[in-house]
Amino acid sequence: MPVNPRGGTILGLPVVNDIGALPDGVDIAVIVRPAEEVPDILIQCGKKGIAGAVVVAHGFGEWGDNGSATEKRLRNALAESGVRIIGPNTSGMVNCTAQADLIGLPELPPKGPVSVLTQSGGMILTLLEDNRSINGPGFDVIVGLGNQADVGYDELIEELGRRKSTGSIAIYNEGFANGRRFIEAAELVSQNCPIVMLRGVRSIEGGKAALSHTGSIAGADEIASRVLPQKGVILVDRSDELLPIAALLATTSLPKLQTGVAVLTDGGGHATLAVDALSRAGVPLASLSEDTKARLRKVLGEEATVGNPIDVYSAINALPDVFPKCIEILASDVQVGLVLTIGMFGGYHIRFNEALLEGENLAAEQIVAFKKTTSIPLVFHNCYANRMLKSDDILRDGGIQVFPSLDWAVAGSRALFERANWLSKQNSRDHGVTSESKRIVVPSGLSAETTAREMLQVLGVDTGEWSAASDAKSVEAAVSNFATSCAVKLDSSVVVHKSDIGGVHLGITRESARAAADDIADAMSSQITPVTNFGFIVTPMVNSGVELFVGATNDPVFGPVIVFGSGGVLVEAVKDVTFRAAPLSPLEALDMINETRVAKLLDGFRNYPKVDKRSLANFISSVSNAIMSLENLAELDINPIIATEGGIYPVDVRLVGK
Amino acid sequence: MPVNPRGGTILGLPVVNDIGALPDGVDIAVIVRPAEEVPDILIQCGKKGIAGAVVVAHGFGEWGDNGSATEKRLRNALAESGVRIIGPNTSGMVNCTAQADLIGLPELPPKGPVSVLTQSGGMILTLLEDNRSINGPGFDVIVGLGNQADVGYDELIEELGRRKSTGSIAIYNEGFANGRRFIEAAELVSQNCPIVMLRGVRSIEGGKAALSHTGSIAGADEIASRVLPQKGVILVDRSDELLPIAALLATTSLPKLQTGVAVLTDGGGHATLAVDALSRAGVPLASLSEDTKARLRKVLGEEATVGNPIDVYSAINALPDVFPKCIEILASDVQVGLVLTIGMFGGYHIRFNEALLEGENLAAEQIVAFKKTTSIPLVFHNCYANRMLKSDDILRDGGIQVFPSLDWAVAGSRALFERANWLSKQNSRDHGVTSESKRIVVPSGLSAETTAREMLQVLGVDTGEWSAASDAKSVEAAVSNFATSCAVKLDSSVVVHKSDIGGVHLGITRESARAAADDIADAMSSQITPVTNFGFIVTPMVNSGVELFVGATNDPVFGPVIVFGSGGVLVEAVKDVTFRAAPLSPLEALDMINETRVAKLLDGFRNYPKVDKRSLANFISSVSNAIMSLENLAELDINPIIATEGGIYPVDVRLVGK
Repeated sequence: MPVNPRGGTILGLPVVNDIGALPDGVDIAVIVRPAEEVPDILIQCGKKGIAGAVVVAHGFGEWGDNGSATEKRLRNALAESGVRIIGPNTSGMVNCTAQADLIGLPELPPKGPVSVLTQSGGMILTLLEDNRSINGPGFDVIVGLGNQADVGYDELIEELGRRKSTGSIAIYNEGFANGRRFIEAAELVSQNCPIVMLRGVRSIEGGKAALSHTGSIAGADEIASRVLPQKGVILVDRSDELLPIAALLATTSLPKLQTGVAVLTDGGGHATLAVDALSRAGVPLASLSEDTKARLRKVLGEEATVGNPIDVYSAINALPDVFPKCIEILASDVQVGLVLTIGMFGGYHIRFNEALLEGENLAAEQIVAFKKTTSIPLVFHNCYANRMLKSDDILRDGGIQVFPSLDWAVAGSRALFERANWLSKQNSRDHGVTSESKRIVVPSGLSAETTAREMLQVLGVDTGEWSAASDAKSVEAAVSNFATSCAVKLDSSVVVHKSDIGGVHLGITRESARAAADDIADAMSSQITPVTNFGFIVTPMVNSGVELFVGATNDPVFGPVIVFGSGGVLVEAVKDVTFRAAPLSPLEALDMINETRVAKLLDGFRNYPKVDKRSLANFISSVSNAIMSLENLAELDINPIIATEGGIYPVDVRLVGK
Repeated sequence: MPVNPRGGTILGLPVVNDIGALPDGVDIAVIVRPAEEVPDILIQCGKKGIAGAVVVAHGFGEWGDNGSATEKRLRNALAESGVRIIGPNTSGMVNCTAQADLIGLPELPPKGPVSVLTQSGGMILTLLEDNRSINGPGFDVIVGLGNQADVGYDELIEELGRRKSTGSIAIYNEGFANGRRFIEAAELVSQNCPIVMLRGVRSIEGGKAALSHTGSIAGADEIASRVLPQKGVILVDRSDELLPIAALLATTSLPKLQTGVAVLTDGGGHATLAVDALSRAGVPLASLSEDTKARLRKVLGEEATVGNPIDVYSAINALPDVFPKCIEILASDVQVGLVLTIGMFGGYHIRFNEALLEGENLAAEQIVAFKKTTSIPLVFHNCYANRMLKSDDILRDGGIQVFPSLDWAVAGSRALFERANWLSKQNSRDHGVTSESKRIVVPSGLSAETTAREMLQVLGVDTGEWSAASDAKSVEAAVSNFATSCAVKLDSSVVVHKSDIGGVHLGITRESARAAADDIADAMSSQITPVTNFGFIVTPMVNSGVELFVGATNDPVFGPVIVFGSGGVLVEAVKDVTFRAAPLSPLEALDMINETRVAKLLDGFRNYPKVDKRSLANFISSVSNAIMSLENLAELDINPIIATEGGIYPVDVRLVGK
């Protein structure tokens, strides 16, 4: 129902000249008037009882100072009217299932299970074309998010996740207003509905302060690339993979745990490339049972290659029906979690002989019939798939995706395994006890190390043996209390790099304790700006072990984030770190540990001690719980932590408040 | 001319019943008889003066023991007949330019500039289909290599490189019989003709002995991924990128040096993804001059985004002719090496209004006309490109590639820059003086360190200050000769890990020298199998610096290979190494250094000394030259080398002969 003060008709439709004059029961308004008119229109919509609107106009917050006044009026109008909006500055939305096109596309996209959220109108067109070129399963709801002045990512994924008609959510994202709220929503939505995301603006990193190692290693892209999968979001690297992977996840069952892929092929080259790509993606090949191999040989002949990949080469010229037969045999092997069929099947009648067409179509029908009886996902590559073949369409109509690119088929298979693994960990993950009730405010700037350790201990982190001391005499007493030689260090909230200015003495015994304390005191008084307010911290020496790093930061996007990796002074240069949103369970911490290169040393590499990874994971988890209770946290470095056969020793702790 | 003893006709052609009965002047034979008959047929071909043959049969060397007798007969027949063959076990070859299909494809592939070498018949079909789906430039010669019993990679690329009709060579490779010969040929061919390679069997690593660090870090895939680009080969990671990149390289000029990409777009999302992908690929964006920006504003309006990316968004609805205008302006900016146009251009008439079709086609014609006047490469992405649009075909007929995938467009652009950079270094690269005349045989097994250092010194490697000593007294004398404290180490060809069994004493002064030597001698005599034949090596201590690694190996595929990276005992765990075929120039060594993570430390990170990278590069180059003269070399480790502000100090040298 077009509305315009001038009245008349548009495309033959009578134009209502006032919103108030509309009949009751209008669901949604599409507002295509300039920015400055939008707030008043929203208020009129509210009065008319219209619950939602799409606001296309630009000229709001994205124009900086030029749009800020209009943006403010918009927000007031939203509050006053109670109307919920998509936009402003959006290309609009399409509900393909309801056949409502609020974008103005030349034709309604095909109805299907993939829903789309995007911060770019161009990506909507790309996804529509990509679906067209692979004859994909089609779309449910497509939303251009625009400025997200009102409805944003978190509400949208929750709503899409509730829709029976949505099988997967494909997102093109250029950043989050509130990433923490998104990952909380994503974690819940992902339990039932897969979310696949392509991220833009990855190459632009925010400038960061660097009072700590964490500050300088925690790049926005690195954090996002770990935190999003932690919450179930499947990330894709390439724009041309977003639609294929979302299509597969929306239409296909998941592999069982502890299984692998069976690759069914008709020649060596494609098989080799598939095995390589699966290996790089970390997806295992299935080990076939002897029974399976014997059954395959019956179909393919005694000479056939029935390891994995399974090569039908010798049999195929005569018989396209070997494909359904082999797929059925493979799917019955408990080791097989997914059957990936690659090569020419569907195009034999093009390559060899038109007479094979009927046999291929029949084989495709048999495969679809079998698919209804199994929960094993079937994925197809066909190098002729761009030709829109009948047999490919039979498979697709049966809910089986066929890709012209081997890389898409493999990337999709990987996504299915990634999702199956993620889901399997959801039940066993206990996020531990977060003492949310305890709130400790971190003082601004650097804290003295003893203060930092005390705060962490109160919050349940075992910071090991250490003593605070105020003068040389108490340093001596503290050293005497430890069985081994000690490190005597400056304890100050002023000095950032204490070792650079003589604030650290190592290997101190009772005999050398006073001298060490005096040396530190001398060093402090001889600074250009003498350091006056300081004490000492005494810790037992830990001589050899693996140097590790545990840090935390309050990421502007994702909130409290934990860092783990190789420790020592070279943290930034070595850059062997990984990230997770806090809090996290020991099981999640174990995943973190195993992602780093230093994990290899922890297994007892060469003369290195074998470290108890579970203790380490418990420690990381305890730090992640603690930082949830730290208000005003900017950055925390526990570096190095020395890991030995006997335990985990936090050697230095640095805490910085905002 | 079909030949078969039974005579008759095939497809209406009269069958000659004996090779001898053929007319003279036959160029090539396609032999489609079983393996055991092939040797005799070749001898008959030779007698008839037929110079070449394609041998399709399998059942030779690839069948292991079952085929080895036939393989031997084949080799004898090749020697006797003088016939050169492609195969056996090949799908055949096609010369599209000469319209000779020796594979038996359903139709002759389109004639064009891309030549193909592949070890998989399936990949030929994939490349044909990929060319079809992007309406690519077509093919010159396509060869299935088969077993390479005779003609192999090196001869084929040399021949293809000489063909005027070949613009690029696309290779699908599953390994080399002689990789050294291939890279030598590739280096020459690449000067004029680009070689693009997709590698299979990357996930399968050969088992390797590990008497040295080099032995355990030099995986086949890692070496190939560095050595091939060193010689000009452009590697692609994904099977779906091989054809697009080869098509682009075959048809497009190269960017000038010290330039970047100008991204011309019609909206933010595609632009963001392109910038991200270019950034990941290490391709710079061009900085546009103020003049360029002013000229762009004249076309696009004062409000338009004319940084880089350049967004035509505000202007486009009316005027497709902004594209040729903007491309012309961008190409005239000296900072712009390549114009990448992305988004919808070509599909505006689909997205918005059919009336735009004519304008788009006209704009495409203007772009093609402009292309004839410029050497700046133009690359296009169009999200509607799968629809076979008229304007895309106009561009393609004008030698401009249009891709439906943004990722292919970016990967292709990257390949153009990679090739331009590689070519630019060819003139300035002096491989140094290789003393090929000197040949030194490395004894089998481990050499004593003093032996190793002597060999390297003779071959021009500066192994620094060190002394050999035979007993405690001469150790003391050697230590006295150095101005600093020394390391006193066991010198033995028996002990592999000398520090593990008390063979290394550090910080030794004149006073402690004899005791150190005695300790080592005691440790040797107390071994379960006492070490009797040993001496000592004395080197001055180098206390702080960056620990580096230089190694060498005789790779079974590529021959002498040099390794550089982070050094120390953790080499395998840190895995910060890169590889090159030896010999290499200091300039190539500098590239190596800058590829590693440790390079950051060499620039004076934190308190680290700033190291002279040129001296280091000279050292690496000298080692690479030396190993060319070492016969029977298995592995060489110089680890650690301590790099300081003052110099490069090889601390430990380990040489292993085969």
